[in-house]
Amino acid sequence: MTAHTHQTAPTQFVEAKGIRFAYRRFGKAGGLPLVFNMHFTGTMDHWDPALTDGFAKDREVVLFNNAGVSSSSGDVPTTVEDMGANAVAFIKAVGLPKVDVLGFSIGGFVAQEIALQAPGLVRKLVLVGTGPRGGQGMANLTPEAQRIFGATYDPPDEIWLAGFFTPSEASQAAGREFLKRFRLRVKNRDPEVSEKVAPAQIEAIINWGAQRDGSYDYLKGIRQPALVVNGSDDVFIYPVNSFILQQNLPNAQLILYPESNHGSQYQYPKLFVQHVSIFLDG
Amino acid sequence: MTAHTHQTAPTQFVEAKGIRFAYRRFGKAGGLPLVFNMHFTGTMDHWDPALTDGFAKDREVVLFNNAGVSSSSGDVPTTVEDMGANAVAFIKAVGLPKVDVLGFSIGGFVAQEIALQAPGLVRKLVLVGTGPRGGQGMANLTPEAQRIFGATYDPPDEIWLAGFFTPSEASQAAGREFLKRFRLRVKNRDPEVSEKVAPAQIEAIINWGAQRDGSYDYLKGIRQPALVVNGSDDVFIYPVNSFILQQNLPNAQLILYPESNHGSQYQYPKLFVQHVSIFLDG
Repeated sequence: MTAHTHQTAPTQFVEAKGIRFAYRRFGKAGGLPLVFNMHFTGTMDHWDPALTDGFAKDREVVLFNNAGVSSSSGDVPTTVEDMGANAVAFIKAVGLPKVDVLGFSIGGFVAQEIALQAPGLVRKLVLVGTGPRGGQGMANLTPEAQRIFGATYDPPDEIWLAGFFTPSEASQAAGREFLKRFRLRVKNRDPEVSEKVAPAQIEAIINWGAQRDGSYDYLKGIRQPALVVNGSDDVFIYPVNSFILQQNLPNAQLILYPESNHGSQYQYPKLFVQHVSIFLDG
Repeated sequence: MTAHTHQTAPTQFVEAKGIRFAYRRFGKAGGLPLVFNMHFTGTMDHWDPALTDGFAKDREVVLFNNAGVSSSSGDVPTTVEDMGANAVAFIKAVGLPKVDVLGFSIGGFVAQEIALQAPGLVRKLVLVGTGPRGGQGMANLTPEAQRIFGATYDPPDEIWLAGFFTPSEASQAAGREFLKRFRLRVKNRDPEVSEKVAPAQIEAIINWGAQRDGSYDYLKGIRQPALVVNGSDDVFIYPVNSFILQQNLPNAQLILYPESNHGSQYQYPKLFVQHVSIFLDG
């Protein structure tokens, strides 16, 4: 498509449902684009360039801010269902008839909603550090998440060392490498999210996580091949939820990485890109 | 090493602990050999050539019959610990100072024992369709295993269509392809096991599977990087046991394949060889 990379791709805008969606698009055109759905309070600049540029070698990558997040207008909905509807509207507004969808954490909830609400739009799903509706320990933020999000960090982005990596030396070292990559884009970087984002996203997370009879039944309706990925020691969304996703989705592969937390894909970026590429190309 | 393949590799013999071990060795020499540990009542000819020849392109492959199995002399022990000790003796007798170890089903129990008893001998572990000591549903053969092993099949090797593959059309089709490959070696094929093998192996399986307090504690002693692989619907060793292995081993990656049973690696042989090769070479 262009010679753009994670660092240089310009932020573009598209309107749908009265929302002005900010997005970036780069990588090798011609195949199915991979659309990324971001985690709690993250912007387009919270993706790891090792992943986005890694995938961009072989396929087009589409990053966007969902409604109310950073450079996108509108309000953050308080349900994942509405976030999914907004994401579907965005993908259609960009003019993409079929895509692969990757979602991380709450972005993984949104990815499931996209597949449920617009099954014809989605070829394959990549669900990272995420879980099903009503999963285990998902009725609220986990005690670990409450502790990590309740603390202060200087500089503030060091919160991700605590949230995405384990305390082990190897994981923290990988975390510091991640932060270096995370900070690389300086020019035209997305503004951090407003103070209205976290409360609305937390309400949506709690709505999604509440356990009900038959919480997992809806997964039978997601017929797309799915790849579920998580770290062995995810303290935000416990890894058993990845196992539950795999066991209840009709066609899902599971990969759990060793000695890693919620950001296992940032701890093993090359391996993750390799595994996901095999899955998407297979 | 040689131009031999799964079909042509001659059966060789080596003595250790008073046992004459039958083995075959082929593939690209120079790196660490991958030693295969076979499942319940299987012989060297029960490995899928798509796997063994697949791996042999990049590494040396060592197949063997443990004590009392098929063309190896001696008695089948009634504990996995003793099977592990025999396997260690075999590997040392062949003169291999360090190896990667793959085990399938009861062979995965033996692989864990090899790593525990001779940690310096093992670089990496691949544990397929297997579980920990005292895993879930492992105190006896599962009801499904009892039904499948209690039935008769004509030809007899069609038991593996029931035991290794799901009833789905896609899985059964993959199973028939597996059986074709499984039957390819006609010349110098291993004799099927004697009637003494199954009872001794079942006793060992039940010993290993009995739940005790702290059943999984020993896994902390297996420090090697491990790759745990299973099918989503394994009816012989339930897939939750692969999750338990991953969660309790200090350094383990888990891969579960979709819509597959105990023989998931034979349903997705190319993908399995690719995933295991990435793990072994990483």
